[in-house]
Amino acid sequence: MSDTRTNAGIDNISKFQKMFTWEKPGSRVITVMTAGNLATTQAVISLLDERLKAPEERNPSIMAADTMFQVAKLVGDTLKEVIRTQGDGGPESEAAFGATLIVGGQIAGMEPRLFLVYPEGNFIEASDETPFFQIGETKYGRPIILRAFSPDMTFEEAVKLLYVSFDSTLKANLSVGMPLDLQTIELDTCKVAQKRRVEENDPYFSTISSKWGDALKLAFNSLPDYEF
Amino acid sequence: MSDTRTNAGIDNISKFQKMFTWEKPGSRVITVMTAGNLATTQAVISLLDERLKAPEERNPSIMAADTMFQVAKLVGDTLKEVIRTQGDGGPESEAAFGATLIVGGQIAGMEPRLFLVYPEGNFIEASDETPFFQIGETKYGRPIILRAFSPDMTFEEAVKLLYVSFDSTLKANLSVGMPLDLQTIELDTCKVAQKRRVEENDPYFSTISSKWGDALKLAFNSLPDYEF
Repeated sequence: MSDTRTNAGIDNISKFQKMFTWEKPGSRVITVMTAGNLATTQAVISLLDERLKAPEERNPSIMAADTMFQVAKLVGDTLKEVIRTQGDGGPESEAAFGATLIVGGQIAGMEPRLFLVYPEGNFIEASDETPFFQIGETKYGRPIILRAFSPDMTFEEAVKLLYVSFDSTLKANLSVGMPLDLQTIELDTCKVAQKRRVEENDPYFSTISSKWGDALKLAFNSLPDYEF
Repeated sequence: MSDTRTNAGIDNISKFQKMFTWEKPGSRVITVMTAGNLATTQAVISLLDERLKAPEERNPSIMAADTMFQVAKLVGDTLKEVIRTQGDGGPESEAAFGATLIVGGQIAGMEPRLFLVYPEGNFIEASDETPFFQIGETKYGRPIILRAFSPDMTFEEAVKLLYVSFDSTLKANLSVGMPLDLQTIELDTCKVAQKRRVEENDPYFSTISSKWGDALKLAFNSLPDYEF
């Protein structure tokens, strides 16, 4: 799930998609989500796209890479290169033009994999110990994931948790805004199972948002009060 | 409420009090809480202390200022001065040596007041629209305050909310750590009603921490699941 708000200052807010998918159904599906400098992330997505159309290039495209690990490496190399060329290199340009990406997907015959790609181009992979990734404005929505996530959740529950986590962030910070994009990939089909845009008037989102407020208050009231 | 962790890197963690009180029971009570660069905040507290012992100084001490507004101004001026002299001035020293303070208290015959003091030395006051302040690592603990705070809460409930908010932060971020300091001031007494240190084995904190996890899960389960 990703939001769509981008800003260059509080009075310069726009809507841009932050979730991008390349798929060849039955063969491979790759999704990239972006956070950080918009010029950087757009350049990365455009470069990844362009390489698909110029197969004679030295670098293989993400649709030709042998493994998801190689896909993550290609994305990381592209990200690092873009950040370096935007500025004069060095730590300053990393701060000013920095971006962080989540790369997930599956190639037919292999396991689905999920990576978090840093501005330096290196990356880490999700595991049993670190089963989820967040990028961007991560802090407001983190406590509820830490408390409520469980590896044996159903997908229906996991999506509910995403809604609750995003709702907490939306309530607290203007840099994250509706609509949201939600995408799921079904195991071994190597294609997008569902992609939908969740608008502000989305009935399920409204239900979650209002009921979560009530449920939290009930939860809070169920705890014993402090005694002076 | 304040925590006591301070760090200069992940391998250099210490325990320092971040809550400081000056009181003359029945006449005035002033509490300052600190976040940010430790050298800066210690210098500010020391300077405020020193002025009490050198009454001939040009600047009045916070125990002699006429109003809480004047107290906040003195604290803000001291903070700005310390940050300026730590570096060579300018935005860089503000970032490197920055600190933010909360100043609260009451002077006999006047209303209790609460201020948030910025590194630039200026400050804002709590109001009906902005009834609480957080400083330091504020984001993890903010959503629950936004959802559960209500102006007609009892003090017992408000302290419970502080515990829950700090617990969410403690679970998510290493830069905030136990023990916590909790202080209350009773209206018009102009003295500290209760000051206690909440250690890791504190029974009430343990109860809140474990029960909050369970209550959150129940709250989460009470919401309708997403339907594909």
